[in-house]
Amino acid sequence: MKVPATTKNRTERAQEVIARCRALAKFSEDANSLRRTFLSESMHDCHAAIAGWLKPLGISATIDSAGNLRGFYPGADSAAPRLLIGSHLDTVPNAGFYDGMLGVVLAIALLEELDGKRLPFGIEVVGFSEEEGVRFGVPFIGSRALVGRIDEELLGHQDRNGITVRGAIQKFGLDDKRINEAALGDDVLSYVEFHIEQGPVLEKLERQLGVVEAIVGQTRLVLRFCGKANHSGTTPMDTRHDALAGAAEWMVAVEARAKVIPGLVATVGFIEAKPGATNVIPGEVRLTLDTRHRFDETRSVAIREFTGFAEEIAEKRGLFLQRNTLLEQNAIVLNSFLADQIEEAVRKSGCEPHRMTSGAGHDAMILAERIPSAMVFLRSPGGVSHDPAESVLLEDVACAIDCGVHLLKQLAQTREFLGRICRA
Amino acid sequence: MKVPATTKNRTERAQEVIARCRALAKFSEDANSLRRTFLSESMHDCHAAIAGWLKPLGISATIDSAGNLRGFYPGADSAAPRLLIGSHLDTVPNAGFYDGMLGVVLAIALLEELDGKRLPFGIEVVGFSEEEGVRFGVPFIGSRALVGRIDEELLGHQDRNGITVRGAIQKFGLDDKRINEAALGDDVLSYVEFHIEQGPVLEKLERQLGVVEAIVGQTRLVLRFCGKANHSGTTPMDTRHDALAGAAEWMVAVEARAKVIPGLVATVGFIEAKPGATNVIPGEVRLTLDTRHRFDETRSVAIREFTGFAEEIAEKRGLFLQRNTLLEQNAIVLNSFLADQIEEAVRKSGCEPHRMTSGAGHDAMILAERIPSAMVFLRSPGGVSHDPAESVLLEDVACAIDCGVHLLKQLAQTREFLGRICRA
Repeated sequence: MKVPATTKNRTERAQEVIARCRALAKFSEDANSLRRTFLSESMHDCHAAIAGWLKPLGISATIDSAGNLRGFYPGADSAAPRLLIGSHLDTVPNAGFYDGMLGVVLAIALLEELDGKRLPFGIEVVGFSEEEGVRFGVPFIGSRALVGRIDEELLGHQDRNGITVRGAIQKFGLDDKRINEAALGDDVLSYVEFHIEQGPVLEKLERQLGVVEAIVGQTRLVLRFCGKANHSGTTPMDTRHDALAGAAEWMVAVEARAKVIPGLVATVGFIEAKPGATNVIPGEVRLTLDTRHRFDETRSVAIREFTGFAEEIAEKRGLFLQRNTLLEQNAIVLNSFLADQIEEAVRKSGCEPHRMTSGAGHDAMILAERIPSAMVFLRSPGGVSHDPAESVLLEDVACAIDCGVHLLKQLAQTREFLGRICRA
Repeated sequence: MKVPATTKNRTERAQEVIARCRALAKFSEDANSLRRTFLSESMHDCHAAIAGWLKPLGISATIDSAGNLRGFYPGADSAAPRLLIGSHLDTVPNAGFYDGMLGVVLAIALLEELDGKRLPFGIEVVGFSEEEGVRFGVPFIGSRALVGRIDEELLGHQDRNGITVRGAIQKFGLDDKRINEAALGDDVLSYVEFHIEQGPVLEKLERQLGVVEAIVGQTRLVLRFCGKANHSGTTPMDTRHDALAGAAEWMVAVEARAKVIPGLVATVGFIEAKPGATNVIPGEVRLTLDTRHRFDETRSVAIREFTGFAEEIAEKRGLFLQRNTLLEQNAIVLNSFLADQIEEAVRKSGCEPHRMTSGAGHDAMILAERIPSAMVFLRSPGGVSHDPAESVLLEDVACAIDCGVHLLKQLAQTREFLGRICRA
C-alpha cells in the first residue's frame, strides 16, 4: 500500500470511510435494521452527520428542494467549473450499510485527501435523497431533480400514508416551489459515482475495482397463461390444459436461451398459479420476466424470442396467452473519456481494472442524460447487497480512494476534460 | 329408449331426477351459488325435501347422529338383509347440482321404479352428511360414521368459527353421544353409489356409464427448493442459484415422465416463489405434487422417480431440497362381483360399459373398508365438476336408472349375492 503525504495513510482513511458508513446506518426508521427512505425523519440525522464531516473542510452543506445534500469545495478560482461526486443516501428496508452511502462518504474522503489543495475545477459532493424508489414506488427522485425532470405528476405521487411527494418535501422543511433550483447549472463538468457492485462479477474475477462502461437496458413483462382448471385426480394427463405445466416449460426454455446469450440476464421473479389448490390443475398462471442487456438490440431480439417461445407453448398446449410490458428502459452508455481516465487511475492505484456493465440502475444513469458521467464499482463480497450482510473490503476501499486521488490529479492535468464543458 | 311398465317412462323418470337435483340446489348457504356444507342450516331444508320424496314410498327418513339421511325400504321379510344405495348431500363452494345429490336422488328413483315390489333384501337410501371436507378440512365424516371411524380427535376438529364437529352435531339438533349408533349393522349386504364421473374419460370414449373397479391411491407432497435470492440485474446467469428455475425444470421432468406411465396423473397445483419481486431471483420455492394411480406400486415407483429428479436438479444447481408428505393413501379395489353385475346391467340397459378407475375419492372408498362396495359413473359433459357448469345428460340419467333396475333384479336372483353376507 502506497502511503501518500497526507495526514492519514490510505488504510486509515479507508477505515474511517467504513466507520462513517456504519455510523450513518444508525439513522434508521426501523429499530433493529436499516431503512431510511426519501425525506424520512432519519434523513435529517444522516444529513447532520455528513454536514459535520464537511465542516472541517470549510464546506457548508445545504439541502436542495428535492432533499439532496450538496456541499461545494471551490476550485482554484471563482469561475472554475465543477465536478460532481456522490451517490445516494436513501436505503431499501433491511438494508446493508454501503449501497449508496459509500459513494458519498468516499467523495468526502477525496476532499480530505486534497488537504486544502485547489484544483482547476470545484468539486460538489452530492448525497442524493432518493434512488431506491421505496417510499413512492418511483426511483431516482433525487437525481431527476438535478436534470430538471421533476414534474407535477411526480409531485402528486402518494406514499402508503397518502402523503404526496410535494407534501413530503414540505414536511421535511423544504420549499417545493423552488425545486427547479436543484437543477444543474451550466458550470457542471461531469459526474463520478463510486458504488458497490451488488453482484459477484469482480469477486469471481478477483478484481477490486470495476470501470462501468454502460448501464443495462431492461424490459419487464408480465405474462398470463390461461388453461383450464380441473380435478387433479379425474383428468388424464393427455386431456389437460395445465397453465402451470406450460409456464414451467416456458421458464426452462427462457433460462436455456438466456444462458447462451453473452451478458444477458432473464429472471422470473414472481409467479402465481390459480386456483392454487393441491388437488386442482392450475387454470391460470401469472408470472413476470425481467430481461437486461447492455445492447438494446440484443435485449429486443431476446424478448422477441422469449415471447415467441410462450406463443408456441401456448399454441401447442391449447392455452391462451396474454402479455403486458411493465417497463421498457434502454441502455445507457457512460462517458468513454471518463471511463478511460478511471481505468488509468485504477492501474495507478496498483489494481487491475475490469471494464464492465452495470446490471442495476444508478443515479449516474439519470445524470448521463445531461452531463458526461462515470462509475467506479467496488467488489461486493459474496455478491451480497440489499441485505445487512452487504459489505466491502478495507483493501478495496483503500484502492478506491487511491483511484479517486489519481483520477482528480489526471483530470486536473487534462486539457480535454475542461474542454468538454465548453462543448457541453 | 325402452319403456318399462311403470307409471313413468324412463325419460320422464330421468327428467324428474334432474329436476330434483336442481330443486336441492336451492338449499344453499350462499345467496347466488350453491354451498351446502356439513350440518349447515341449509342441510335441514335439503333433508326435508328428500323426506318428502320418500314419504309416498312409505319410508320415514331419519337423520343419524352424524347427520346422514337414511331411509329404509324393507325387503320381502323382516329378516332380509339390506343393500345401501346413496351418495353425499354436502357440496363444495360454488358447486354444481349433481356431484353427490344425483346418487341420492337416483336411489329414490330406483325405489319408485320398484313400484311397491319387495326384494329378498331391503334397500337403505343414504344421503351422506359430509364428503367434500369443506367445513372441517376433513372429508368423509358421514361415511366414516357408518364404518365406525369417528373418534375423539375428529369430534374435536374446529371450523373457521371455532365450532367443533361435536358442537356442530349438537347445534344441528343431534345427539353426539349416539354417534356409534350410526355404524352399519351386520345385516348390511353391500353399498352401491351412482356418481358423476367428474372427468372427461367417458365423454371422450363416447360411453354413457362407467363401471368403477378401483379408486386410485394418492400421495401428496410438498417440496421446497432453496437457492439464493439475488439481484436480477447484477447476477450473471452462470452464478445463480435460482430456486424457481430449478422448480420449473423439475415440473417439466415430472410432467414428461407422468405422461408415459399409463393411468398415472401428477399435478403441481400450488406454487409460491419468495421473495416474489420482479427484480429479485427467487431464493425459495414451495410447491405441491399430487400423484395418483390405481396401483400402489406404480405410484410408489413414480414418487421415487419424481423425488429423484428433484434431488438431481437440486444437486446440479446448488439448491437445498426439502420434502414433506401431506397425504399417503393407498388405492381401494372395489368389489369385483358387484362390478361384473353392474357391467351386465349396463349392457342390459342398452349401453356399452367402460371399466375404469376413479381418480377422485368417494364415500364408496370408505364403505369398502367394511362391506363389498361398487360405483357407477355417469358421463360428465366437458369433464366439468365443482362448478355451476357441472351437468348430466338426460339420456345418461335414463340409462343409469335402467342399469339400476336391472342390477336390483339381477341381485335379487343371484344366490351368490345373498351368500356374501354370511361370509362378511
